Amino acid sequence: MSAQTPLRLVSLLGSLRRASFNAGIARALPALAPEGVTIEPLGSIGDFPIYDGDLEAQGLPAPAVAMAKAIGAADGVIVVTPEYNYSIPGGLKNAIDWLSRVKPNPFLDKPVALQSASPGMLGGARAQYHLRQSFVMLEARLFNKPEVIIASAAQRFDVKTGELTDQPTRELIAKQLAAFATFVAACKRGAAAS
Amino acid sequence: MSAQTPLRLVSLLGSLRRASFNAGIARALPALAPEGVTIEPLGSIGDFPIYDGDLEAQGLPAPAVAMAKAIGAADGVIVVTPEYNYSIPGGLKNAIDWLSRVKPNPFLDKPVALQSASPGMLGGARAQYHLRQSFVMLEARLFNKPEVIIASAAQRFDVKTGELTDQPTRELIAKQLAAFATFVAACKRGAAAS
Amino acid sequence: MSAQTPLRLVSLLGSLRRASFNAGIARALPALAPEGVTIEPLGSIGDFPIYDGDLEAQGLPAPAVAMAKAIGAADGVIVVTPEYNYSIPGGLKNAIDWLSRVKPNPFLDKPVALQSASPGMLGGARAQYHLRQSFVMLEARLFNKPEVIIASAAQRFDVKTGELTDQPTRELIAKQLAAFATFVAACKRGAAAS
Amino acid sequence: MSAQTPLRLVSLLGSLRRASFNAGIARALPALAPEGVTIEPLGSIGDFPIYDGDLEAQGLPAPAVAMAKAIGAADGVIVVTPEYNYSIPGGLKNAIDWLSRVKPNPFLDKPVALQSASPGMLGGARAQYHLRQSFVMLEARLFNKPEVIIASAAQRFDVKTGELTDQPTRELIAKQLAAFATFVAACKRGAAAS
Repeated sequence: MSAQTPLRLVSLLGSLRRASFNAGIARALPALAPEGVTIEPLGSIGDFPIYDGDLEAQGLPAPAVAMAKAIGAADGVIVVTPEYNYSIPGGLKNAIDWLSRVKPNPFLDKPVALQSASPGMLGGARAQYHLRQSFVMLEARLFNKPEVIIASAAQRFDVKTGELTDQPTRELIAKQLAAFATFVAACKRGAAAS
Repeated sequence: MSAQTPLRLVSLLGSLRRASFNAGIARALPALAPEGVTIEPLGSIGDFPIYDGDLEAQGLPAPAVAMAKAIGAADGVIVVTPEYNYSIPGGLKNAIDWLSRVKPNPFLDKPVALQSASPGMLGGARAQYHLRQSFVMLEARLFNKPEVIIASAAQRFDVKTGELTDQPTRELIAKQLAAFATFVAACKRGAAAS
Repeated sequence: MSAQTPLRLVSLLGSLRRASFNAGIARALPALAPEGVTIEPLGSIGDFPIYDGDLEAQGLPAPAVAMAKAIGAADGVIVVTPEYNYSIPGGLKNAIDWLSRVKPNPFLDKPVALQSASPGMLGGARAQYHLRQSFVMLEARLFNKPEVIIASAAQRFDVKTGELTDQPTRELIAKQLAAFATFVAACKRGAAAS
Repeated sequence: MSAQTPLRLVSLLGSLRRASFNAGIARALPALAPEGVTIEPLGSIGDFPIYDGDLEAQGLPAPAVAMAKAIGAADGVIVVTPEYNYSIPGGLKNAIDWLSRVKPNPFLDKPVALQSASPGMLGGARAQYHLRQSFVMLEARLFNKPEVIIASAAQRFDVKTGELTDQPTRELIAKQLAAFATFVAACKRGAAAS
């Protein structure tokens, strides 16, 4: 079974709000991962300056270099994000724009899974499909299904602690993580032998 | 003719790089506008912090308030932007995310036209279609055609001054601005009488 | 009030299945329309051949000519459709592809509203955003909000008659139709005076 | 080298017009494939009825069953298509909609590459990104880059024979096919060992 191979995944959070539903999901991931799979949070998207080609000419900002290195060293990435204005949060996209300037491309052939939550009825789905388009450019390997799209998020978390308590949601995420681990392992085998 | 009514438009630039092709286009707009139409640049997307709901709870940042006010007072908005990673530049999206938090919504029923340029062959088109989706949420009135999608941008500007010198490109932009002015005037008439 | 002006709308159905939820919505529209607004169904997308440029060279098929004429004569169009494979149903898109070959373009400056229903949790939303992109090409005037995205459709219809019985859904549709009528009337005023 | 393993690919054509640029590309594929890779054309999208759930209830149409079988037996699929109205041609989408009803899903984990050509400046790119979204639902493995997006197609074909004569375009396609063969081989290795 693929999950027997230890796999090191990292999570990238698209929200900065402390009580963010998506932050709650990101915190829940390690406990929901299959055996042998670790999931470490990447740095904050709030540490990146707004992308500016002139700034880049002076050298890549430290958070971009550090995050690219962590992604490059990981077996796969889980993006956990809200949707803002029917698309990717600007702050998350800004981090990705900086990461795309690092050489070598940290996302090249990297397995990526997407998760989103929103208080509304579409659960951040629109951000996910725009992210998928960006990851074509970045040549990542996007995981397909099951999709983790959490609508009506407010009902699924403990109001006081912000922890993800809804059992069906936890099961859906665990199911995606197990399938993603299998996908990551298959990608590794495919790459290793080539 | 609609252009006889004075119209006040504003332009929103999606790039911070000084020698940006899109900045060159934004500078060219006033000279290409039909008679009676003024086009003023909005503030810089570089002045916005990365969106954070906790920061918002302390009050909207001054650049968001100022830009929302300028948009609210204008008859229409022209977004001029590159495409980053097959989508909207994070910095531009971040500014839009902040603007979307201002009450009343500055984009409500606001006519919006899109322009993009890139050195590549698709001319930023992918950013435009993602922007259109965000503007559904914001309930803006999106102008359709002619679309201004400037591919192979490097050949169209004066290398020393960064000015847009390519005549067919200038004509395309002038044509869009004239049609957009007609659209803006029609939107105003429709709204005025209701 | 705009709805006092009689408005003639038409509905375009994206499904052929007799017991289709979307067909149920289309049937409910006339009763949910504001006073002075009529909504007539267009012909069936099932009557169109698969688009073929060589066939077109022999003359446009009769269903395309007839539907284009009905759209051209209407004040606005309501597309009611399921989502197939995260996008527009092929049959609906095929009808639109034929309609786009008619001269003059029946959708030019035509107000268009979108409605979708699906048994799943995203309610056909993905088809709507793809449709919006096609309608940029066709230069239609797309209505924004409220969006009618009906998730978990199976619970909202009478199992025996297939009629839309869910009251909140009926109210959402009535609300969209009223706002769309206002939008259509504003578009007419804007066009009339130009 | 992956191309040493014999690979059997199939091509799915999105246009029915006899002199179609995309048909010209599909015909050119076998000669441009790396050694050990065969590319056979699938059947015609023109043979499918417009999708209708009631028709499906009577049994899947023969062209859907046959095409699904051919796809299931292939190592990978190359979709070669024009763009109609800024999206997937309705006829191609209709074929995909039927294919999606076959059990087992013929596209499950199937490597898919996209190619498009158009006389315009965007080369069918918009159809490709919509196709990618549909293939998330179908759980295919989408190849990323190099993308084959052929703009200004009219200049690249022999006017009399309709053959693809433009050398840089032929080289781009050959380059994609070589990279796709590597991708397909890696997917096979990953799957085989799991």
